[in-house]
Amino acid sequence: MEPDVFASLVALDPAGPDTLVAQLYRGIRQAVLDGRLAAGEALPSSRAAAGLLGVGRNTVNAAYDLLLAEGVIEVRPGARPRVAAMTRPAAPADNGPPRLSQRAAKAAVVLRRGLAEGPLAPGSPDPRLFPADAWGRVLRRAARHRQDGAEGYAHFEGLPELRQVLADQLHRHRGLVCAPEDIIVTPGTQASLVLAAAAFADPGEVALVESPGYIGARAAFEAAGLTCRALPVDGTGADPDRADLSDARLIYVTPTTQYPTGVRLPMQRRLGLLSAAQAAGAVIVEDDYDAEFLWEGRGIAALAALPGAGHVVYLGSAAKSLLPGLRLGWLVAPPGSAPALRAIQARLGLAANVHAQAALAEFMASGGYRAHLAAISAAYRDRLALVTGALSDRLGARARLSAPAGGLQIAIDLPELAEDQTLRSRLNAEGFAVGALSDYCLDAPLTGLVVGFGTATEREARRFAEALDRHLGPVEVA
Amino acid sequence: MEPDVFASLVALDPAGPDTLVAQLYRGIRQAVLDGRLAAGEALPSSRAAAGLLGVGRNTVNAAYDLLLAEGVIEVRPGARPRVAAMTRPAAPADNGPPRLSQRAAKAAVVLRRGLAEGPLAPGSPDPRLFPADAWGRVLRRAARHRQDGAEGYAHFEGLPELRQVLADQLHRHRGLVCAPEDIIVTPGTQASLVLAAAAFADPGEVALVESPGYIGARAAFEAAGLTCRALPVDGTGADPDRADLSDARLIYVTPTTQYPTGVRLPMQRRLGLLSAAQAAGAVIVEDDYDAEFLWEGRGIAALAALPGAGHVVYLGSAAKSLLPGLRLGWLVAPPGSAPALRAIQARLGLAANVHAQAALAEFMASGGYRAHLAAISAAYRDRLALVTGALSDRLGARARLSAPAGGLQIAIDLPELAEDQTLRSRLNAEGFAVGALSDYCLDAPLTGLVVGFGTATEREARRFAEALDRHLGPVEVA
Repeated sequence: MEPDVFASLVALDPAGPDTLVAQLYRGIRQAVLDGRLAAGEALPSSRAAAGLLGVGRNTVNAAYDLLLAEGVIEVRPGARPRVAAMTRPAAPADNGPPRLSQRAAKAAVVLRRGLAEGPLAPGSPDPRLFPADAWGRVLRRAARHRQDGAEGYAHFEGLPELRQVLADQLHRHRGLVCAPEDIIVTPGTQASLVLAAAAFADPGEVALVESPGYIGARAAFEAAGLTCRALPVDGTGADPDRADLSDARLIYVTPTTQYPTGVRLPMQRRLGLLSAAQAAGAVIVEDDYDAEFLWEGRGIAALAALPGAGHVVYLGSAAKSLLPGLRLGWLVAPPGSAPALRAIQARLGLAANVHAQAALAEFMASGGYRAHLAAISAAYRDRLALVTGALSDRLGARARLSAPAGGLQIAIDLPELAEDQTLRSRLNAEGFAVGALSDYCLDAPLTGLVVGFGTATEREARRFAEALDRHLGPVEVA
Repeated sequence: MEPDVFASLVALDPAGPDTLVAQLYRGIRQAVLDGRLAAGEALPSSRAAAGLLGVGRNTVNAAYDLLLAEGVIEVRPGARPRVAAMTRPAAPADNGPPRLSQRAAKAAVVLRRGLAEGPLAPGSPDPRLFPADAWGRVLRRAARHRQDGAEGYAHFEGLPELRQVLADQLHRHRGLVCAPEDIIVTPGTQASLVLAAAAFADPGEVALVESPGYIGARAAFEAAGLTCRALPVDGTGADPDRADLSDARLIYVTPTTQYPTGVRLPMQRRLGLLSAAQAAGAVIVEDDYDAEFLWEGRGIAALAALPGAGHVVYLGSAAKSLLPGLRLGWLVAPPGSAPALRAIQARLGLAANVHAQAALAEFMASGGYRAHLAAISAAYRDRLALVTGALSDRLGARARLSAPAGGLQIAIDLPELAEDQTLRSRLNAEGFAVGALSDYCLDAPLTGLVVGFGTATEREARRFAEALDRHLGPVEVA
């Protein structure tokens, strides 16, 4: 190769952000890849190249070492480096996106009709209520003092101290009797749902999900290959008598505070559900998403705490009580099934951040967590009153409101409405991130709205009631 | 009911850890559930009950409210509360574990032959090298100052500032050109593998995995329902000419530092792999697990940075450079596929802790991360020298060692050995958590050992070389 040809191949910029070694390596590599340097062609010796380029010989040697390691050049003792023989891809790259799987194509479509973000979004806790200072302290302590193996690949199923304190808290506050070994810590409820689905059902099997109900549960089960059917929900919650449970492998329920209607499942139905599940050999997935901070009254015991509740997977989470961004949830495995769940968890990579786990364990053990729950319960109770008060003042009997004892949203039943999507879109367009009740239904949709109050202010509540009043007129009714 | 019968139903302990309300609620509830209190039976009025039990009337009212909310009792105005009618489950609970899915049963079996924990475990970084003080500071700042919506359900795909700094770092140090929008932050490489598998392949389709190779990749793909076939690895890495790639949907490779052999894939094979994948319409999954802290020389560019590498999913992680317990990984989506990957990610719940993300973003942007990489690279280089030195001194030519430029383990090729499981077991029994090379193979197993050096001390290295020397004698050879 002519010396000036070589020098022209690589444009070195001593003032550039990258090192001269990196620039030289990339320049020669690019020249080989795009064919400007052909196989077998000899490069200058490192001494000659250094002179041509005005750089140190060490720089050239380092770049040549990289090219050698990558197999772009070959070096024989006493000879100049040569460009290695290599076959380039026949055709230029296809720049279109790769073909998606059928499940991905389906998931992408569903996501497009997801929920809006903004004021009155259902299910959103208020990040301003997060105990940031206290959390920052325990978190920093966790980062600085943990050095016992749990920072590595051990305890993928959760830190022992967190599982211990969770077992204690679940016993005291939810009536659950479980060993720390039965608890698995996950990156949140969605991950717990995926884990439970994979552990107890195979593709093509049936999961019953509440309708209306949590959309994420259906999404998780479908991602696991299951077929979802509706478990109808009425004014007292999921009704096992109105669904065929015989072929169900999973039954998803929110008995403490039904999502999104806010009703509490009565004992009669709890017992009926357990009987039916037992007869079918199904596993009940109890999503207790907000049970630790019921802001109305005290908590009744979990479904999983009932006698006869052998085959219930209990799901909890710090998303509502602390922050969704912690990505911290937990499940209690039915007796004997924890080893299999841990094996599936490892395969699916569903583990939570170790420092957040240690921080939660300390926060719970110190009593700080219970004090925090009392504080946010009072705050959410007040915000619920703001929203229901504003709606009652403005709409009176035109809308039936749920009166939830927990959760962060109310359902507004608007049975006269032919469809609620238009109303939802119009309210979204005005900046209110409310949901349409029919979006939460698998079949036989109810019409209405789902309104979050977690971050609601008095002004927002009044403006929303006014907007709803205004829109309810022109919207087509049945 | 006789008053003394009622009093006998509930044993209240004012000094107990639980409130009197909780004790009373649980006592009555339990009596109803186990049949001591029958449907229709009247309870004492709250005034009478308070007198009988020696507690305040408010306490009884609160407990009655809970029982009412749960549907255990019914209250009519002016009348005494009555036990509600309810059907108990026909049979007592089946206390056996629930039936597992086929995939869970299979996963549980595979896990039992998992790797040991302890000194010389392959793939384990040293937690003592974790920059705990610096991380504690940025983590605390993240916990205290973040309040912009990202703490909630927004940015499930990763914090914008982290994706921006990752895009910058990947461009500068790995040669990748990608937009922050193409990056998805996950709870680690295992989660990234699950995500890539779900996005680009459907159950029953074929994934090629390196053999020997990373066991977790195979586990993730099988959990996603895929069929795994071997992509043979020799002394220069994965050989696309020795496998049928025509029906592959995914091809998993570790081109920078092959896991576990440590070899680097030459350019010729990289180009051949890209051609073959393109012809098959397959997506290459490039696991660049340690590329940010190559402790030998500088990094060559990623496979995903090659021209023609349109359909490569690039995976990175903070597990080796910082701490596995952070559960922090990232992937770069092929052009046009990020929206579908985000949709699948949301369904599978594969999101990372928000404070760890913010901390990493600050650590990277401040330059602290690069300084840390330089420090640990030097430490790991020294530890590799300890282990290879001790082995060479003791075994000489009896064992062929890989000389990796990255990673945290070496492969010891022992081709004379009939099988390596016995040797592995004996070494494990002596406390060395080394792996058998055949465990990393899908078919045509190689025999040898995989030895981690991430935490190795001089004493451990010498003791291990001595133990291996001793065991190589009695072990049956071919």
